[in-house]
Amino acid sequence: MDAISSTIHHHITAAAAHRPAANMFPKLLALQPLAIHDSHSKPKKSSRSAVESLSHLLHLRMETPEQKLIVQQSNWNLQFDHDEKHNTPAMSPREDVSDKWREIHGSQDWESLLNPLHPWLRREIVKYGEFAQATYDAFDFDSFSEYCGSCRYRENRLFEKLGISKHGYKVSKYIYAMSHMDVPQWLERSRIAETWSKDSNWMGFVASPLFMEKPRLSVGFLSIYTSKCEATRYNKSSASEQVMEEVKRLVEIYKGRGEEVSLTITGHSLGGALALLNAYEAANTIPNLPISVISFGAPRVGNIAFRDELHQIGVKTLRVVLKQDVVPRMPGIVFNESLQKFDDFIGTLEWVYTHVGAELRLDAGSSPYLKRGLNLLGFHMLETYLHVVDGFLSTSSTYRSNARRDVALVNKYCDMLVDELRIPPCWYQRENKGLVCNAHGRWVKPRRDPEDIPSPTRDQEVHVHGIEMRESCERFESLLSV
Amino acid sequence: MDAISSTIHHHITAAAAHRPAANMFPKLLALQPLAIHDSHSKPKKSSRSAVESLSHLLHLRMETPEQKLIVQQSNWNLQFDHDEKHNTPAMSPREDVSDKWREIHGSQDWESLLNPLHPWLRREIVKYGEFAQATYDAFDFDSFSEYCGSCRYRENRLFEKLGISKHGYKVSKYIYAMSHMDVPQWLERSRIAETWSKDSNWMGFVASPLFMEKPRLSVGFLSIYTSKCEATRYNKSSASEQVMEEVKRLVEIYKGRGEEVSLTITGHSLGGALALLNAYEAANTIPNLPISVISFGAPRVGNIAFRDELHQIGVKTLRVVLKQDVVPRMPGIVFNESLQKFDDFIGTLEWVYTHVGAELRLDAGSSPYLKRGLNLLGFHMLETYLHVVDGFLSTSSTYRSNARRDVALVNKYCDMLVDELRIPPCWYQRENKGLVCNAHGRWVKPRRDPEDIPSPTRDQEVHVHGIEMRESCERFESLLSV
Repeated sequence: MDAISSTIHHHITAAAAHRPAANMFPKLLALQPLAIHDSHSKPKKSSRSAVESLSHLLHLRMETPEQKLIVQQSNWNLQFDHDEKHNTPAMSPREDVSDKWREIHGSQDWESLLNPLHPWLRREIVKYGEFAQATYDAFDFDSFSEYCGSCRYRENRLFEKLGISKHGYKVSKYIYAMSHMDVPQWLERSRIAETWSKDSNWMGFVASPLFMEKPRLSVGFLSIYTSKCEATRYNKSSASEQVMEEVKRLVEIYKGRGEEVSLTITGHSLGGALALLNAYEAANTIPNLPISVISFGAPRVGNIAFRDELHQIGVKTLRVVLKQDVVPRMPGIVFNESLQKFDDFIGTLEWVYTHVGAELRLDAGSSPYLKRGLNLLGFHMLETYLHVVDGFLSTSSTYRSNARRDVALVNKYCDMLVDELRIPPCWYQRENKGLVCNAHGRWVKPRRDPEDIPSPTRDQEVHVHGIEMRESCERFESLLSV
Repeated sequence: MDAISSTIHHHITAAAAHRPAANMFPKLLALQPLAIHDSHSKPKKSSRSAVESLSHLLHLRMETPEQKLIVQQSNWNLQFDHDEKHNTPAMSPREDVSDKWREIHGSQDWESLLNPLHPWLRREIVKYGEFAQATYDAFDFDSFSEYCGSCRYRENRLFEKLGISKHGYKVSKYIYAMSHMDVPQWLERSRIAETWSKDSNWMGFVASPLFMEKPRLSVGFLSIYTSKCEATRYNKSSASEQVMEEVKRLVEIYKGRGEEVSLTITGHSLGGALALLNAYEAANTIPNLPISVISFGAPRVGNIAFRDELHQIGVKTLRVVLKQDVVPRMPGIVFNESLQKFDDFIGTLEWVYTHVGAELRLDAGSSPYLKRGLNLLGFHMLETYLHVVDGFLSTSSTYRSNARRDVALVNKYCDMLVDELRIPPCWYQRENKGLVCNAHGRWVKPRRDPEDIPSPTRDQEVHVHGIEMRESCERFESLLSV
């Protein structure tokens, strides 16, 4: 335990989500071994049909926001007065977690913190989930935008725009990923010719905390991990290299100042699987760096050898899994093997992702705010996860009555909330898709604020700044506090 | 011809559209005789399959805004510089149509005005179309709103909110319709218990022009025409009675002042069919009132007897029909016959709606801005009609190069514009579906501005005002100019 509270822990976190919600599923499935299943003579009936219905339903539901509601048979009664609830701050008071931070980040494999769930750990999990959610909420998936596939905001206003500056972090670098040749439909692409980038998508960010006794760093990413191409603007280095470069840079800075540094990587769905790859690489690249992974609804990743290696190098993994979510039951991407070679693996592998680290297993049925019934997409959404985590006390308790997180967030991209709450389904949308009526009476798309236009050069400048900072901790501090 | 330009023509117009766009088709079809077709032993193959695909496609397209584009084979080149076009006022200069108003409103059955299309008539058609469009754009179809099914704005700000106050009209009365027992799914209903009305939907408006040498009145309606119920708040009188009462009231006022009055009724789709019923009733109720109907994409209505009677009483009808739109080819509702009795008619009737008055037949292929290919919904949308009308010169001409109407409007509820224009499909949407983040960090639906809350009492007050006005033209003038 770290008893000296004045020690500054620089905690690096990677918030990884793989796609904006509106398109993630078809492409997530494209990466699964399901396609190979199809060529097998004896596919496993049960898993195939589940997968097919998932694919089918998700695809349909993605494009057809459910208008008809599943009839509520529950005798759920409104548990609060609307106005009272609406006038309650959505944030809880924050405790100083510095004394317990190593344990909260997995030093003891979360053994004694999960059931009942320690309130400090709950808050940390929600925070990391909100970092992963940020990559969905800020992603520009307007195919008529010349910035399609980028982040809608520049680094220094991302958290503010998304209302998560409360966590006290600041983005230090954006990470970009390029299309993998095997999965050509992976990226979000603009329909128009001249775009900010033809090859890359925004993938996430590296961030570090401000004004806290125990500042931390965060890294987030979205998509495929190892591709690069000299001819591109954003992927002369791969996403993997970008993350590692930035993490190494920050670790060096903080270690050079005699401070403790740790890295937590977080991600949702495929992003959760990628977080594990990132952790593996970071552990092999940077010796003696405490690394933890907190994933949400991630599919299974890797084989037994990979599991053993992760364990050996000390990567701590906490998988948050919703009982109703089928994605964590699906085989995920396989590390170090090309997709073509997947055939060799299937059948011989026991999928073992669940054995890497700890699992926080939650039941959506514990929440009185959520509809019952089958909603495969809804039960996989990250906001649904965060809502259930927020109310979780222990496996033997009901949803906690003093949960503070805004329940309305659940319905951002789906239709999961009971009607009594009167929150429209899929409500997270831009007014007129960004069109505005100009002085001449014409509906036009305003030019993006130059500050928010992606630029590999500007990223480079930020980076160079960072390197200069190594020579001057004071100047670095001032950069962080801008 | 009216040579005395100081004569004031009070022109009453009924802008009728039947439903908000997002839900109109399944319910429109529910009113068609198609269901009766089904019970026939020998349905007409071609029309049935067309209808089935329409129903199927429309239903799907309604709920699944098309993301994939039909590949453009056209060699269409961008015909204008974007910025230049965006800086061109969307309005053309207005001429004084007073000398020609009788002819423009059908006194000569539009014989010499359609091909080539007289520019003044084009402008009148677009104006009436925009009145009909207003009932779509302002309709509250949020099923979680307690005002679901009402107009989102009160009478005195409807046109301003929709950007059509340029036409110089002022709403004098809103019209409400109630659910027809035979078509229980007709109305838009709120999912929540306490609502502004359980039985009625906003249906349209009566309006009159301001500050013009030749002011006119407008009436608009949306839905079923003749139902009423003493127990309801909004339909103690039927929509039909509400319209007639208001029209009669205004006609009396203007006639009492020695002024000329005329009535034009306009509507889109089923609203166009209902406009004809309204015209029939008005002609039989108010003697010597010149009445014209301008409909857009309306299905066929009525039988030979109805046609003959309309003709005899002097109702002038101009049907605007898009060649690619299948709805005008479909049989519509039958006047004076219950839906159950429809069986008696089918087969013995020659559908003759096209013989009532004149037809302005347009080809969407004339517009270089519209996608080719099959888009049944898109070709039926009122905004598509208005776009094609705006560019129509004659059957032998191409789309006029000096058309001023904003092309972007076409994509409000569909995906009809070529990619080069960069206008997102289905872009007409509210920011976060009306939710706002309050000071406590919670997403809530703000209470509707009390001014915009529907109230049968307030409507009554407006009405009473109107009656008092009969005794004082000056006071009436001041009401109009408020």
